[in-house]
Amino acid sequence: MSTLLIHSPTVITLNDKREILPETSIFIREGEIVSLIPAGAAQPEADLVLEGEGRAALPGFVNSHTHAAMTLLRGYADDMELLPWLQEKIWPVETKLQERDVYWGTLLAIVEMIRAGVTCFNDMYFFLESAVKACEEAGIRACVSGVVLGFRPDADKELERAVQYALALKQRGLYRVTAEISPHAPYTCPDELMKKAIAAAREAGLGIHIHLSETKKEVEESIARHGKTPIAHMDELGLFDGSPVVAAHCVWANDEDIALLAEKSVGVAHCPGSNMKLASGAAPVAKMLARGVRLGLGTDGAASNNNLDLLEEARLATLLAKVESLDPTAVKAYEALSMACRGGAEALGLGDLIGQITPGRRADIILLDLKQPHLWPPHDLVSHLVYSARGSDVRTVLVEGKPAMIDGVLQGLDEARIMAEAAACARRLVG
Amino acid sequence: MSTLLIHSPTVITLNDKREILPETSIFIREGEIVSLIPAGAAQPEADLVLEGEGRAALPGFVNSHTHAAMTLLRGYADDMELLPWLQEKIWPVETKLQERDVYWGTLLAIVEMIRAGVTCFNDMYFFLESAVKACEEAGIRACVSGVVLGFRPDADKELERAVQYALALKQRGLYRVTAEISPHAPYTCPDELMKKAIAAAREAGLGIHIHLSETKKEVEESIARHGKTPIAHMDELGLFDGSPVVAAHCVWANDEDIALLAEKSVGVAHCPGSNMKLASGAAPVAKMLARGVRLGLGTDGAASNNNLDLLEEARLATLLAKVESLDPTAVKAYEALSMACRGGAEALGLGDLIGQITPGRRADIILLDLKQPHLWPPHDLVSHLVYSARGSDVRTVLVEGKPAMIDGVLQGLDEARIMAEAAACARRLVG
Repeated sequence: MSTLLIHSPTVITLNDKREILPETSIFIREGEIVSLIPAGAAQPEADLVLEGEGRAALPGFVNSHTHAAMTLLRGYADDMELLPWLQEKIWPVETKLQERDVYWGTLLAIVEMIRAGVTCFNDMYFFLESAVKACEEAGIRACVSGVVLGFRPDADKELERAVQYALALKQRGLYRVTAEISPHAPYTCPDELMKKAIAAAREAGLGIHIHLSETKKEVEESIARHGKTPIAHMDELGLFDGSPVVAAHCVWANDEDIALLAEKSVGVAHCPGSNMKLASGAAPVAKMLARGVRLGLGTDGAASNNNLDLLEEARLATLLAKVESLDPTAVKAYEALSMACRGGAEALGLGDLIGQITPGRRADIILLDLKQPHLWPPHDLVSHLVYSARGSDVRTVLVEGKPAMIDGVLQGLDEARIMAEAAACARRLVG
Repeated sequence: MSTLLIHSPTVITLNDKREILPETSIFIREGEIVSLIPAGAAQPEADLVLEGEGRAALPGFVNSHTHAAMTLLRGYADDMELLPWLQEKIWPVETKLQERDVYWGTLLAIVEMIRAGVTCFNDMYFFLESAVKACEEAGIRACVSGVVLGFRPDADKELERAVQYALALKQRGLYRVTAEISPHAPYTCPDELMKKAIAAAREAGLGIHIHLSETKKEVEESIARHGKTPIAHMDELGLFDGSPVVAAHCVWANDEDIALLAEKSVGVAHCPGSNMKLASGAAPVAKMLARGVRLGLGTDGAASNNNLDLLEEARLATLLAKVESLDPTAVKAYEALSMACRGGAEALGLGDLIGQITPGRRADIILLDLKQPHLWPPHDLVSHLVYSARGSDVRTVLVEGKPAMIDGVLQGLDEARIMAEAAACARRLVG
């Protein structure tokens, strides 16, 4: 269809004026938000009308850091120390991964994310082609990358392949799905490999997606080895001077690191759920916001979260910031909600495209049902969304103006088949 | 009906053997769990059969500390310092409370709690009679109390009335709803009043529900004034030597306090969501569990949470314990789930009645839908419930073997009316 009208929801625009507009219709043409129509004004005709009465419309959530196909390992190993968890559980299974695992695991992640209102995600995993295939079929927006790990014998070749694939994807003009380069982390990629990745990404005009300063140990080892924090060390290697960068975690960023992240416009993917479950620590979110760091929210993979629910991450972002600082005014509800939508879009360099409900932006929009006992009475919509709502309150999801879910019914994805195939993959992997 | 069969769910018994029994039917007669029937064995006939295939059955969640009618103030004031929040926002509104507010606010809380699988709650608020009326009509299990605040001019009379009402309720033989005595907290009740409350409760054979050691400031002031922590000071006044006690929060309990709580079998209501949102701190849950403290989970009131979802509290309990100690093995998933059900029952002194799915216990049982993308693939049921499930995954709820909700449809409560009346009350209170 070419035109679509969402009739009369309360619109949380997340625009610069922070407007929240009750009973305002949204008119969409060819995937673009054309106009916001106030109550009482004439409503244009449209090929499809979605009822928004009693619902909140907001920009789709952006999951700014995940490993989508790790849904296959959800609940496979929990409550363990990081190294045994990786070495005895996660990595041995990952050596068995095949293309179809990543395909079905990514589709399972996409079904879960659409159901919870995620319209865009930033992925890093293996078998990139399979992830892209899943994204294309599902019609979701994504930035994807195959991970480059220095301890693999063919890391240099992996990097080359990643660059070639990303360029090929660009040429196909598939603009909803873009590929990045992902050197995994400073502690898994030697400096030489990291420098190659930085240079290759810059030359090819590609973004970089990386893990930085996730654990205290990582920072301590970096200081022992290089005399610098991972963030300062990466700056020295030129990471922040070429390509747009999304750095996941940054839990142990110190004040100088934060200044650097702000100055160099690095996108930071804050992952409070993963940081809590893996006991990595509490990222200095309030400080980062105060310094103007581009902050999005990420779930990390489902092995360390264990769901892909951005509303939960928004809640955890504010709750963790408050309890960690013993300051109940830290990271207010609006800031947390904004991080989950607009912040993530800007962290991924997509701020001109998505992240606001405003004319000219693409229509990645979700509708949440407000008439529910846990969101009642209707004192403060933003508070309700951040402090009380659940992913399951999302009822309708549009990506590029195209319905991915209407009133809880997925449009075009065969959920039962995806769950059956994903279960079969999981059984083979851990059996 | 007199008999009920739940056919073939996976039963998380929470019994002493920690049994998790796949494809096991639960036979219930007159509100009591009679037998667990393994797959393949003959299934008894029953007046009502509920299909449990693809579902988890577990003991209903116990909300061990809340102020139910504060649902009316959900989202009314957030992200504020504690004192201005109380003095400028919450307390002025609470002076306007009337009986009908507590009645409709409590019903709104009950609807929300049943929908999220809470079958029993421990309440402390004003207009106790209205709360009891709501509980009776809804058929939920509850311990209720009217709060006694020392700064009110008629505190002594309030205490007397509370004792008389609790005794009258006992005489009515309404055993699903029991009344306790609630001196609010050491910092709001002078020692003389507290001693009267302790003596009155002991004499009348009533339990006590109190706030203890919620904030650092409270502990510092207690030490400055009495030379003791609030918990040690209350012990000195005899609080733990007569009636069974539920102490909410205990965030700042030190090692001696914890030893005391364990030795005196005090029930502790851990409220991680409220403690995070109000920036009270992280309670020493791992230590309390190690010392054998009776630990349940509570939501606190909806003004400081802002929902009444025990699955969320279970998740926050383990995540907060992990990140606070930087130990990913702290408070494992099973421990968190157990706290939400059996732990709460035992903290409330109801451990012989509810908290396990085992013959002889009352049939407070909930069914959760496991066939959902965010709970898939089915590696580890307990992990999925604690780390990924949502309150909305609860589909069916029994209290005393009587359905309060079947497949998401409330049985006997008029949700639309309750929401409308609660909204009207809220408008009057804050308008």
